[in-house]
Amino acid sequence: MKKHYAIGIDLGSTNLRAALVSEEGEVLKRIKAPSAEGPGEALMKAVGELFADGVLGIGCGAAGLIDTDRGLVIKSPNLPAIEGAGIFDAIREKFGVPVFVENNAKAAALGEKWRGEGRAFRNFVLISLGTGIGGGIIYNDSLLDAATELGHMSIIANGEKCSCGSYGCLELYASAKAMVSRAVTALEHGSESILKECCHGNIYKVTPGDIYAAALDGDTFSREILREAGRYLGVGIASVINIFSPEAILLSGGLVGAWNIYVQEAIKEASRRAFKELFERVKILPSSLGDDAGVLGSSYLVFLCRST
Amino acid sequence: MKKHYAIGIDLGSTNLRAALVSEEGEVLKRIKAPSAEGPGEALMKAVGELFADGVLGIGCGAAGLIDTDRGLVIKSPNLPAIEGAGIFDAIREKFGVPVFVENNAKAAALGEKWRGEGRAFRNFVLISLGTGIGGGIIYNDSLLDAATELGHMSIIANGEKCSCGSYGCLELYASAKAMVSRAVTALEHGSESILKECCHGNIYKVTPGDIYAAALDGDTFSREILREAGRYLGVGIASVINIFSPEAILLSGGLVGAWNIYVQEAIKEASRRAFKELFERVKILPSSLGDDAGVLGSSYLVFLCRST
Repeated sequence: MKKHYAIGIDLGSTNLRAALVSEEGEVLKRIKAPSAEGPGEALMKAVGELFADGVLGIGCGAAGLIDTDRGLVIKSPNLPAIEGAGIFDAIREKFGVPVFVENNAKAAALGEKWRGEGRAFRNFVLISLGTGIGGGIIYNDSLLDAATELGHMSIIANGEKCSCGSYGCLELYASAKAMVSRAVTALEHGSESILKECCHGNIYKVTPGDIYAAALDGDTFSREILREAGRYLGVGIASVINIFSPEAILLSGGLVGAWNIYVQEAIKEASRRAFKELFERVKILPSSLGDDAGVLGSSYLVFLCRST
Repeated sequence: MKKHYAIGIDLGSTNLRAALVSEEGEVLKRIKAPSAEGPGEALMKAVGELFADGVLGIGCGAAGLIDTDRGLVIKSPNLPAIEGAGIFDAIREKFGVPVFVENNAKAAALGEKWRGEGRAFRNFVLISLGTGIGGGIIYNDSLLDAATELGHMSIIANGEKCSCGSYGCLELYASAKAMVSRAVTALEHGSESILKECCHGNIYKVTPGDIYAAALDGDTFSREILREAGRYLGVGIASVINIFSPEAILLSGGLVGAWNIYVQEAIKEASRRAFKELFERVKILPSSLGDDAGVLGSSYLVFLCRST
């Protein structure tokens, strides 16, 4: 019998990940490329490299607000170049297979439900922690059909202006972008930290990874950056618990690597804030699929559609 | 054929409403009583007055966190006296019919879906605006099985301490309790307002109704109290839109009477904050059932259970 495959894409604000995935959920080939500049070109190139005989379709998870029926990106504050149908229509035309578009955090939730930790739960919330913050919800074993823009809950009503147009969004205080921005501003104002020595002294090149490494090296400044972001994440997690009372919260994305400081602080803060009875029964876990959650979920969109 | 009825209860933080309801959703008799002191006794008395031949069961919507499977209140910050199974078991025993327990805002959402404005929508969020703030969600035509404690989203991370244990909850800034508390504090500090003359000069007896009446009379102080609460409600509504992207938001509860100032301000604020594409397609409407939403939804729990 002929083997069938799908190409799964996870188009985040900073990186594009793509994979060739079998019907059993095996990742046969992976690609990673920067996405911030020319995300459309990066996407087209990745599909070209992965396309093979037996590919039934392409699932594309992208950071932003999606119209799944029409298969396009309505709005992507961090990747405006992919808004509209243009790039997705171009892929449809060039490769002659269906292209499904979904929000990338929602795709990651689907990936977790298909092949990851999420298999154990009927109801869970996935929060993706990267440059931005996204969310996807599995409710009664299916993906909740809602925007789930968890990064754009206001947690400080009169706070900073967000690229989405609102103020005080969770993403402004708890994401990778937030940590780097806090660190750079404080270093500009003369804060003491070993971060000044990294990146050949160019503080504008500091990454979340540098901050975590410095924190593990005992840098008080970096620990506080991570802790503060973690506390705000905990504020958001508490609201998510009070609203969804999920069985589990799965955390995915690059920042999960900073579990010991950032996430631990978030869990502590959430435990102080969420309804005690709800907090006690929720499990807060890292995504078991790591960077593959998004590409697996996106490719599952193809297999799901075929089976229904 | 014998006619069947249910008793529907809406046990809020300030008032208890109860009704005898027919299978067709007709309210045959209504009772209203204060609930803040002795909610259990008020509940028992109301059921006693309404109980009649043909009553299949009792549906009880109560402000708080509910265990629907066990039919009890887990936690009710504003009505701690009804926590546990005690009062519900006593009613079961005395009247010999099933007693279903649900959160009262969720019951109101169900009421709207059964007999109100909600019939027109497959996906909507009901926000109850009274002493506290509650929420109920209809997702794909059914009640979303989640805590939906929308009043306990943090909108000001480092804000005031809430009775739920968290800080900066929406309810602390946008509810009737919040308005009265703001007004009293400002009046204590010497703010000028015609409110000083109401309640025989006893500012501690000011009600949300007094504030709205004064605002309509041109009292600047009262208008600002309503507007400020409305702006915070708008912050919460924007987050609800960004998370649930509902077709509609139905507003119920006593504060909906202050639509022209309070709710209009909330809609304006939400329009500035929510994702534009989501705001444009959501309808924000008052509950068409008014105070009956809760009792109708609670009684529907009885009929629903019978039909499945």
